[in-house]
Amino acid sequence: MERERPAEDDQVERLFAGLVSHGLIVPVDVHGIFGRGAVFEDVLRRVDEMIVRQSAEPAESLTFPPVIDRSVIQRTDYLDSFPQLAGLIYGFLGDHRDAHQLSGRVHRGEPWGELMSLTDVCLNPAACYPLYPTMTGVLPLAGRLVTMLNWVYRREPSPEPTRMQAFRVREFVRAGSPAMVLEWREAWIRRGLDLLRRLGLPAQTEVASDPFFGRVGAVLAEGQRAQQLKFEVVVPVVSDDHPTALCSFNYHQDHFGHAFDIHQDDGSVAHTACLGFGLERVVIALFRHHGFDPDSWPAEVRAEIWC
Amino acid sequence: MERERPAEDDQVERLFAGLVSHGLIVPVDVHGIFGRGAVFEDVLRRVDEMIVRQSAEPAESLTFPPVIDRSVIQRTDYLDSFPQLAGLIYGFLGDHRDAHQLSGRVHRGEPWGELMSLTDVCLNPAACYPLYPTMTGVLPLAGRLVTMLNWVYRREPSPEPTRMQAFRVREFVRAGSPAMVLEWREAWIRRGLDLLRRLGLPAQTEVASDPFFGRVGAVLAEGQRAQQLKFEVVVPVVSDDHPTALCSFNYHQDHFGHAFDIHQDDGSVAHTACLGFGLERVVIALFRHHGFDPDSWPAEVRAEIWC
Repeated sequence: MERERPAEDDQVERLFAGLVSHGLIVPVDVHGIFGRGAVFEDVLRRVDEMIVRQSAEPAESLTFPPVIDRSVIQRTDYLDSFPQLAGLIYGFLGDHRDAHQLSGRVHRGEPWGELMSLTDVCLNPAACYPLYPTMTGVLPLAGRLVTMLNWVYRREPSPEPTRMQAFRVREFVRAGSPAMVLEWREAWIRRGLDLLRRLGLPAQTEVASDPFFGRVGAVLAEGQRAQQLKFEVVVPVVSDDHPTALCSFNYHQDHFGHAFDIHQDDGSVAHTACLGFGLERVVIALFRHHGFDPDSWPAEVRAEIWC
Repeated sequence: MERERPAEDDQVERLFAGLVSHGLIVPVDVHGIFGRGAVFEDVLRRVDEMIVRQSAEPAESLTFPPVIDRSVIQRTDYLDSFPQLAGLIYGFLGDHRDAHQLSGRVHRGEPWGELMSLTDVCLNPAACYPLYPTMTGVLPLAGRLVTMLNWVYRREPSPEPTRMQAFRVREFVRAGSPAMVLEWREAWIRRGLDLLRRLGLPAQTEVASDPFFGRVGAVLAEGQRAQQLKFEVVVPVVSDDHPTALCSFNYHQDHFGHAFDIHQDDGSVAHTACLGFGLERVVIALFRHHGFDPDSWPAEVRAEIWC
């Protein structure tokens, strides 16, 4: 990853310190897992409701825990593409003697990681992942539209407050024919851009790629860009040169349809697309652009959020 | 753990099947991590708001991610007391060659758990744990009262829908002198019992203990009961003989005060108590006692929730 320049480091520190001193977040000794205060949460909840109101069609609503079936990331080749971001869950499966050994090692400050075993659950790497296995089978003729607000995990600890290990994503998933899915994504790219601009944020659309691992990953990322499979709406938060993605719009083609046997009525493999708003990122962008006190935000922005 | 009797197994299966067939939950191939539908979530959110309204005093409000600083469970000896319930997070720290090896093993179905490394984060084992390290220092004279709604993890997969691996807890924490903390807990035990009875649930208070690990743990549990450190409000859900705890009230004495250097103004170590409502458990108890369609629930119960 590219080294941030000192000017960005200053901006990162000022932003984090401002969020803390105004009680908006509560620092924790590990990067990317800070606590959120009441005002932060109020803005987040209202921004989320505002996003949900933009959906032109009614969507089914589901909520999944932050922990999912580990087989989901294996069936989708997540550990090939993003091993560096995964969070696997290990548990203690031992007996009394093993527990005694574990306790001794922990208290003596000795390594104890090998006393734990891989379990059949992992952290959810993207809000939409737990949905696809529940779609196995034949879709209705009009396809499906589902919305979710889930906690997501990415192992990328950073002092930059918008780069978190754990955060919430408001996600929509559209499943159906390629035409249904692409038309839906196009409409939402415009809506997402419009929504963030109404919040007074200098938002722009970009063709983007996922952070695929390694040299093979660089080739995959190039292919993703060339096919315009991923768009982001970005806003400068800690750097004008490297704006932050607040929402992304991904066309998966038949990747999940194949992995989970999701079909259309005519027997063809279903296509899917998703869009996700990083809710903490939108909230932090608002504090960055409008100040740390929501009472002093521009009236037109307040009217959008506290409507 | 005691073997459930066949009658309870039947009850467990009927309850799970009813929740699924009414779209209240969405089954997942691993036990204890099912998805939640829109009606389930609506009831959960309203029950949560009802609980928060019971607090006699205004509480500070914080939200923590499902993932916390691993040092918190080490400083509180959680791995001594409950190793079997912990969820540690492991990540991939390797290079290109290691990634290639990982991918090969995953695709060939060979063991790959040892290719991952213990990280400095773990799943949150109880809603209040991430709060205590943020309290280090001297408390205000009147102590502190904080409320949180956090996702919690326990490694105890079960087909019983109220025994989940991942669930939400509405928690309150009181920190201060022993007298402040005990008086607060007493008032809340009455409030918790009253609240669940107003929801039409046959609730009872019990002295309880935590599921400490092993033979030493059995002694710890006995001591906890003898000192009445833990109370629960229980309601029959899948068994009349073994009712389910919907909320618990725990007096920690100076356990967390010592672990995180939390002091009172006079220099003495602060005492703490917490209470937590298992939100999914309350919701499932409501469906079990009043039926799977909230429109047909008793009018007085509906009036409490949709007020």
